[in-house]
Amino acid sequence: MKNTINTYVETHKDRFLTELFELLRIPSISSIPSHRPDMDKCAEAIKASLEKAGVDKATIYPTGGPSIVYAEKIIDPALPTVLVYGHYDVMPVDPIDLWHTDPFEPVIKDGKIWARGADDDKGQLFMHVKAFEAMVATNTLPCNVKFMLEGQEEIGSGELTKWCAEFKDLLKADVILVSDTSMLGEDTPSITCGLRGLAYMEVKVTGPDRDLHSGLFGGAVANPINVLSKMIAQLIDDDGVVTIPGFYDTVNNFTQEQRDQINSAPFSDENFGKSIGVNELVGEKGYTTMERKGIRPTLDVCGIWGGYIGEGAKTVIPSTAHAKISTRLVADQDFHDVTAKFTKYFKSLAPAGVTVEVEAGHGGYPYQADINSNNYKAAHDAIVEVYGKKPVPFYSGGSIPIISTFEKVLGVKSILLGFGLDTDAIHSPNENYPVGQFFKGIQTIPLFYKNLVK
Amino acid sequence: MKNTINTYVETHKDRFLTELFELLRIPSISSIPSHRPDMDKCAEAIKASLEKAGVDKATIYPTGGPSIVYAEKIIDPALPTVLVYGHYDVMPVDPIDLWHTDPFEPVIKDGKIWARGADDDKGQLFMHVKAFEAMVATNTLPCNVKFMLEGQEEIGSGELTKWCAEFKDLLKADVILVSDTSMLGEDTPSITCGLRGLAYMEVKVTGPDRDLHSGLFGGAVANPINVLSKMIAQLIDDDGVVTIPGFYDTVNNFTQEQRDQINSAPFSDENFGKSIGVNELVGEKGYTTMERKGIRPTLDVCGIWGGYIGEGAKTVIPSTAHAKISTRLVADQDFHDVTAKFTKYFKSLAPAGVTVEVEAGHGGYPYQADINSNNYKAAHDAIVEVYGKKPVPFYSGGSIPIISTFEKVLGVKSILLGFGLDTDAIHSPNENYPVGQFFKGIQTIPLFYKNLVK
Repeated sequence: MKNTINTYVETHKDRFLTELFELLRIPSISSIPSHRPDMDKCAEAIKASLEKAGVDKATIYPTGGPSIVYAEKIIDPALPTVLVYGHYDVMPVDPIDLWHTDPFEPVIKDGKIWARGADDDKGQLFMHVKAFEAMVATNTLPCNVKFMLEGQEEIGSGELTKWCAEFKDLLKADVILVSDTSMLGEDTPSITCGLRGLAYMEVKVTGPDRDLHSGLFGGAVANPINVLSKMIAQLIDDDGVVTIPGFYDTVNNFTQEQRDQINSAPFSDENFGKSIGVNELVGEKGYTTMERKGIRPTLDVCGIWGGYIGEGAKTVIPSTAHAKISTRLVADQDFHDVTAKFTKYFKSLAPAGVTVEVEAGHGGYPYQADINSNNYKAAHDAIVEVYGKKPVPFYSGGSIPIISTFEKVLGVKSILLGFGLDTDAIHSPNENYPVGQFFKGIQTIPLFYKNLVK
Repeated sequence: MKNTINTYVETHKDRFLTELFELLRIPSISSIPSHRPDMDKCAEAIKASLEKAGVDKATIYPTGGPSIVYAEKIIDPALPTVLVYGHYDVMPVDPIDLWHTDPFEPVIKDGKIWARGADDDKGQLFMHVKAFEAMVATNTLPCNVKFMLEGQEEIGSGELTKWCAEFKDLLKADVILVSDTSMLGEDTPSITCGLRGLAYMEVKVTGPDRDLHSGLFGGAVANPINVLSKMIAQLIDDDGVVTIPGFYDTVNNFTQEQRDQINSAPFSDENFGKSIGVNELVGEKGYTTMERKGIRPTLDVCGIWGGYIGEGAKTVIPSTAHAKISTRLVADQDFHDVTAKFTKYFKSLAPAGVTVEVEAGHGGYPYQADINSNNYKAAHDAIVEVYGKKPVPFYSGGSIPIISTFEKVLGVKSILLGFGLDTDAIHSPNENYPVGQFFKGIQTIPLFYKNLVK
């Protein structure tokens, strides 16, 4: 199968790029309302390309926002079904001055495609369309395929969540295949095996009922800023361990073998520190940096404010002090549970003389792939065949909430088979995607299908 | 002498009020440049009233800002000299809507004079002019008198400090007499015996060289907000004691007798707490609230900021976090020394992965009267004679930097013989001054003079 596909791809590679460029030319920026006609145009273009590639049927489902393109090819209901997820919306292009070329006029230079969406996610999405076309055209499609391509990923996938719940039956599948992540490097293939969840809270400490003169009242009353600082200080101990009771109760522990695999990725603390301008990396004792930002939960204050924060000096004891606090969660932590535990604990830290409020913000579930599953092995072996190297299981510290939503709503696990690189500048000026990764993706995807039905 | 003065005051009381009202009608707001002509007009009026009261000479000294009115009457160089300080400038009147009467059209209602400056400080300053007039008119002036009346107190007395240094010889005196403070109550006479000093610092904690995504980097790096919170938490221990090494080295300890005197003032923790909306007062262990805000130094964070502080959520590890920190100092702490000690200690608290900067802000010396001095006894006994009660020594938590400046520059101690009340609403709408306090002040001042030369 590999050679058959490769030959097809080789034959049609210029056309594949030409078609991708047509897609990239549509400025489908979901966050800017005036681009709504472009969203529709892009959905139509995607639908047409799927039809041309050989789906049984393709449908545009309108939503409260940009539409969802759904398509399927069912060759035998008894065979496994792959549900491909991707998104055709892109981020805004500001600051436009920093782009070397027009973000919506793709060019190839230095072996890369330069355009907004070249990687995230039109480029990666289109690999799936073309891999599917190749399998259909060469009669090698080994299973059923469904496509679910949305236009709202960059603004939160709100409509997709509702739509998934409504069309749960239509979306029945054995695995969801997603190419919307990165590899560690062109020579360091990896599969994203974990995404962290999130529980976001805002806290408020109130002391006196109005701002007080720090001279006349200093020493007599609890100062909300001092109190808040002390409460925050108690949330993490000297070993970098979060002190919220029960916080780690449902955290999956990794075996030494799994940890060795994670740490087999080429990674230098020194270079990482240099890249962000710090001379020492800091975190939970007993874990490497890769582990701390991948498989361990963490707590960060994302914002703090209180009292006088303008120029110069004002001698005030403020009435209130505030902080925005985010915990990053790993499987199997539940953000509702963590929010409740945080709230109870944080309030318990309140000393005399103040009242404390905690407001729960948004949350998201963590995601963890089962690296012993057939799905994972199918992806693993496909990458070995194309890249000649075993992929490293990579646990990302970030969150893609829709992935855990799929699991919750559809009951289907995802495989994050991403081909992006950290140098692709997604969301930034001069987004790009190596031509080599685009075609390696198209080669890898059919092998995943083949391995899946094995 | 008492009866002589009282008779004179009784005879002229209507005129005294009429003359005070003329002064109050001049909107001498030092912080608003367009009122500069009013400042000049007010200085001229003050000069004229001093001349009328019987000084040998009165001079208006121009400065970079509003002028200083200087006057003197030297009856015998061998006798003690009292240097009277006051200020004729007033605060702005915004929000004007909240005034029940025109701030610059004084009226008497409910036994009080209502106008901007009625207490602070035209009303209190004018007591000295009229007490002097009464002594001169009744041939009872027992010593030499100098007046130093400025127009910049509400904007920092910057010109006065320079002027004092320049005219140090002219200002030679045995005591500086100031009525610009309050009593604890009409029935609880008090003398302000202490003012706290101040050392103000701004701190900055820097981690990564740019804001980082809290998912991708959380757990890997020191978060400047978490770090700053932990550093602030370490500045005060669980007993409310400031932990800066050497912070208390030069703090004057009070005897139990002195503390008993301070605590003899009628004061209710419960009512005080209620008045500012807190259910519990908090501070240094082992001291009463009156002591904590009067004779003990303290540390308060007056402002804190870092990261995302807008609406909603942003998952960010900020590059920097900031705080404005104020220490209130008591005699004999030196703000330069405290700033140096704070800076050294705060930097020593910096953990790995961050850099810490401390910027020294403004500072001021604390002030403490010697309650065993003849000056103090003269004031004490004068109050006993007029009020029929011993005055409570009151240690204010606030600062009047010019008082310690006088001590540093002129080498002369001040007596803070204030007749204001906490209900006078100085700096606020509906400033007022009880007519009774105005006349009791005029009666008390000559007795202070008399006691001084005894």
